[in-house]
Amino acid sequence: MEISLKEIVRLIGGKITGDETLTISNVSRIEQAKKSDLTFLYNPSYEKFFPETNASAILVKPEFKKSRDDITYIEIDKPDDAFAEIIINFFSPEIRLNKIDKTAFIHNDAQLGKNVALGKNVVISAGCKIGNNVKVFHNTVLFENVVIGNNSIVYQNVSIREACKLGKRVIIHAGVVIGSDGFGFNPDTNGKYRKIPQIGNVIIEDDVEVGANSCIDRAALGSTIVGRGTKIDNLVQIGHNCVIGEDTVISAQTGVGGSSKVGDNCMFGGQVGIGSHLNVGNNVVLLGRAGVTKSLPKAGYYFGYPAKELKTSHKLEAHFRNLPGYAERIKELEKEIKHLKEQINKKL
Amino acid sequence: MEISLKEIVRLIGGKITGDETLTISNVSRIEQAKKSDLTFLYNPSYEKFFPETNASAILVKPEFKKSRDDITYIEIDKPDDAFAEIIINFFSPEIRLNKIDKTAFIHNDAQLGKNVALGKNVVISAGCKIGNNVKVFHNTVLFENVVIGNNSIVYQNVSIREACKLGKRVIIHAGVVIGSDGFGFNPDTNGKYRKIPQIGNVIIEDDVEVGANSCIDRAALGSTIVGRGTKIDNLVQIGHNCVIGEDTVISAQTGVGGSSKVGDNCMFGGQVGIGSHLNVGNNVVLLGRAGVTKSLPKAGYYFGYPAKELKTSHKLEAHFRNLPGYAERIKELEKEIKHLKEQINKKL
Amino acid sequence: MEISLKEIVRLIGGKITGDETLTISNVSRIEQAKKSDLTFLYNPSYEKFFPETNASAILVKPEFKKSRDDITYIEIDKPDDAFAEIIINFFSPEIRLNKIDKTAFIHNDAQLGKNVALGKNVVISAGCKIGNNVKVFHNTVLFENVVIGNNSIVYQNVSIREACKLGKRVIIHAGVVIGSDGFGFNPDTNGKYRKIPQIGNVIIEDDVEVGANSCIDRAALGSTIVGRGTKIDNLVQIGHNCVIGEDTVISAQTGVGGSSKVGDNCMFGGQVGIGSHLNVGNNVVLLGRAGVTKSLPKAGYYFGYPAKELKTSHKLEAHFRNLPGYAERIKELEKEIKHLKEQINKKL
Repeated sequence: MEISLKEIVRLIGGKITGDETLTISNVSRIEQAKKSDLTFLYNPSYEKFFPETNASAILVKPEFKKSRDDITYIEIDKPDDAFAEIIINFFSPEIRLNKIDKTAFIHNDAQLGKNVALGKNVVISAGCKIGNNVKVFHNTVLFENVVIGNNSIVYQNVSIREACKLGKRVIIHAGVVIGSDGFGFNPDTNGKYRKIPQIGNVIIEDDVEVGANSCIDRAALGSTIVGRGTKIDNLVQIGHNCVIGEDTVISAQTGVGGSSKVGDNCMFGGQVGIGSHLNVGNNVVLLGRAGVTKSLPKAGYYFGYPAKELKTSHKLEAHFRNLPGYAERIKELEKEIKHLKEQINKKL
Repeated sequence: MEISLKEIVRLIGGKITGDETLTISNVSRIEQAKKSDLTFLYNPSYEKFFPETNASAILVKPEFKKSRDDITYIEIDKPDDAFAEIIINFFSPEIRLNKIDKTAFIHNDAQLGKNVALGKNVVISAGCKIGNNVKVFHNTVLFENVVIGNNSIVYQNVSIREACKLGKRVIIHAGVVIGSDGFGFNPDTNGKYRKIPQIGNVIIEDDVEVGANSCIDRAALGSTIVGRGTKIDNLVQIGHNCVIGEDTVISAQTGVGGSSKVGDNCMFGGQVGIGSHLNVGNNVVLLGRAGVTKSLPKAGYYFGYPAKELKTSHKLEAHFRNLPGYAERIKELEKEIKHLKEQINKKL
Repeated sequence: MEISLKEIVRLIGGKITGDETLTISNVSRIEQAKKSDLTFLYNPSYEKFFPETNASAILVKPEFKKSRDDITYIEIDKPDDAFAEIIINFFSPEIRLNKIDKTAFIHNDAQLGKNVALGKNVVISAGCKIGNNVKVFHNTVLFENVVIGNNSIVYQNVSIREACKLGKRVIIHAGVVIGSDGFGFNPDTNGKYRKIPQIGNVIIEDDVEVGANSCIDRAALGSTIVGRGTKIDNLVQIGHNCVIGEDTVISAQTGVGGSSKVGDNCMFGGQVGIGSHLNVGNNVVLLGRAGVTKSLPKAGYYFGYPAKELKTSHKLEAHFRNLPGYAERIKELEKEIKHLKEQINKKL
């Protein structure tokens, strides 16, 4: 593939300095770039690679010192976003699954839209409704009455249990389990547990992406819901009856306890934990490993366990690190007081 | 399905106020209930939905104010438990797998009980013994000499490695890996690691449930054991040679390090961690995210990392939040002392 | 299998006391050993099983009191390492997969080495290169252009996405996902996220082992790399563009954020978290649950969240536990000061 810098500038804006007729054939990281690659510089810690890079063209901020003249520059305010835009438009990988494999099983009572592609050993059970242009990869199993909206992609070895619904343009990565039984048991009088049948489902709205080996449990009753546009990373646990809002980003290994609600436009770092039956509002940012033990209705940044507002948390952490100093000062004060008392007792 | 309130009261007890001849056809959450649904009220925060619910009947506590007369009440002490009981008895979903699919592979040397159902592409290797009424779903693989007791269910995409044994009425959810190699390596003198073959197995006793994508490693030698009635949630890690007791509940994303023992009737919240070679006694409750670094033989509630008794932990957390105040008071004391010293030095 | 103690001593060294002609047929844990088993004693807490063990032979330290004469001893400095060595040499389990199953799919454009074994329903896509003696178990899917080096084992239900490369003698356990899309999104001006295509790959070097259900994401650009000899436990998350060094050990449920670098010969306990874009040096030991929020270039032991040097961390934890005492002492000091002030004011 050959793409001219002019085409690129038409897409992202910016100003070319150098060979305006140049075409590039690939994109790469600055330290790995080859001749005729386009690369970018955004993070100053990568500038050390600039003198040696073999890239033919580079996206840089306008203020970047253009010290080499064997390379063509595109000056632009946000080289990282612009580079992503170029990848989205010119280098999106083709998803190579185009037909229904003969080993795929499609129940007679399932409905398939136009242009559906199914990989090897896929199981589409009775009552499933699969939209147009949907791709379901090898060894993925859909139980009865699963619905998948148009243009969604479900990767390999995925399990979707009965009656779960996926919207349009949803992406489900390998190994994901959607609609497994929620963790619901009643203890009897002897301390033994009886399973409470989990008779709800999971609803994944449009434009959601779910990372590899994540689990979203079906509701005990009603629906576990993941809102439109929300992005879930790998190895994430969403408990039964959770309602996750729209355009929320949940990083790897995070867990949300059963029946908790999470608002829109939240951002969670990795390994975050949210207890059960809690309410997290809109625009809440939980830094990595934050642990939420009480509802957090208010937008803001939170850190630590139990999660506290970031400023409070930073302040407390600073005091925590000062503890040996405080202990020393308390000891010193005790000495001084003792001394003063002696002086006073003697002299008064 | 039509179930009369009389039938329901025969099961759960309680007192009907309203139309004693009513039949209901479904159960649902109060905010989603439709005509002819039965719902329940237990958590006061859901009472706001009562005036508008379309449910025909509702389970309530005896003290609940019955302000609507277009709805039939069943008064009962524990509406939540009673509702679970109704679901267990009348609404348990049918597990729809009833025969051996022709794509399932059964080795000649495997033994199958009566009424076994195997999904598509299931692999039953040599020496396996599968009990009566067992259901194994699509794409699940049993290695050699796996034993599964009567009435167990193994969902799809599950891996059970050689010689592992599951008891009766066990439920294994999708994506679970049982009997994978424990994490055992010996460093050589150059700091390189040599694998120690893991030649034990896993024993899962009767009535255990294991959640989606959880991993239970085979013992290095002997058996990793999960005791009768224990319930394990999703994405849980049980290391090699662990022995987990009976009727213990382990929530999502918890990890138990190799060779640790956990007692009976414990309850662990989400994301709990237990180190290796530790001993956790009976009736130990670990709140979410608790991290156990030393053995906890004594029953009780524990919190934090390193895990402390809950009372101690709450007290320390309160002091922690007071740190800025303490720092201020130390500073104040230092000022006062200085001032006193000056006074004394001047005046004495 | 019958192995003579003489053969064993030839392998591991040590001195036989007792019946030098003895042969053993199995190895087992001291508390479970049967007649003609070999066992070992290393951890003193297991010595209580010695008087009753049915083992015929036992590895012990030279200083161990040989109080039974119905058992044959092998005295050796490190009985645990020696026992592992015996298992490696005499009891390594056979991996029972020896041919290409007829249900395996091999694309015409894939290349297979000699003596490759493929389980049921394995998918080998176009452009894959599989080395000699490789075993790929049931239901595992390799996308296009995957490369696997000689003598590697890939267990069942594994997903390896396009263009990922595995070295020689690599072991990938069940349910692992390699090369799933990294978690990369750009927010637009409305707070909605657009997916950034992840067009890099994953490179797993020689002698790496990856535990069950772990996930290693493909790079946005370039490669996510796991270095030679590194051992990764179950349910671990390695983010896109991470570079993990050689001979590093990463325990279960650990997560490494995108673009972070980890050095050689590190050891991470369970549930460790490392943020994104960080640098962890060689020989860094992170104790269980440590959370790394800043780069840790320096070798050493770290604990806690945010991770601190172990000594510092222990000291701070001790002070933390003393907080109620400090609070009490501050209160006491305030009283004394008040009292002193009164004395001084009165008497001066």
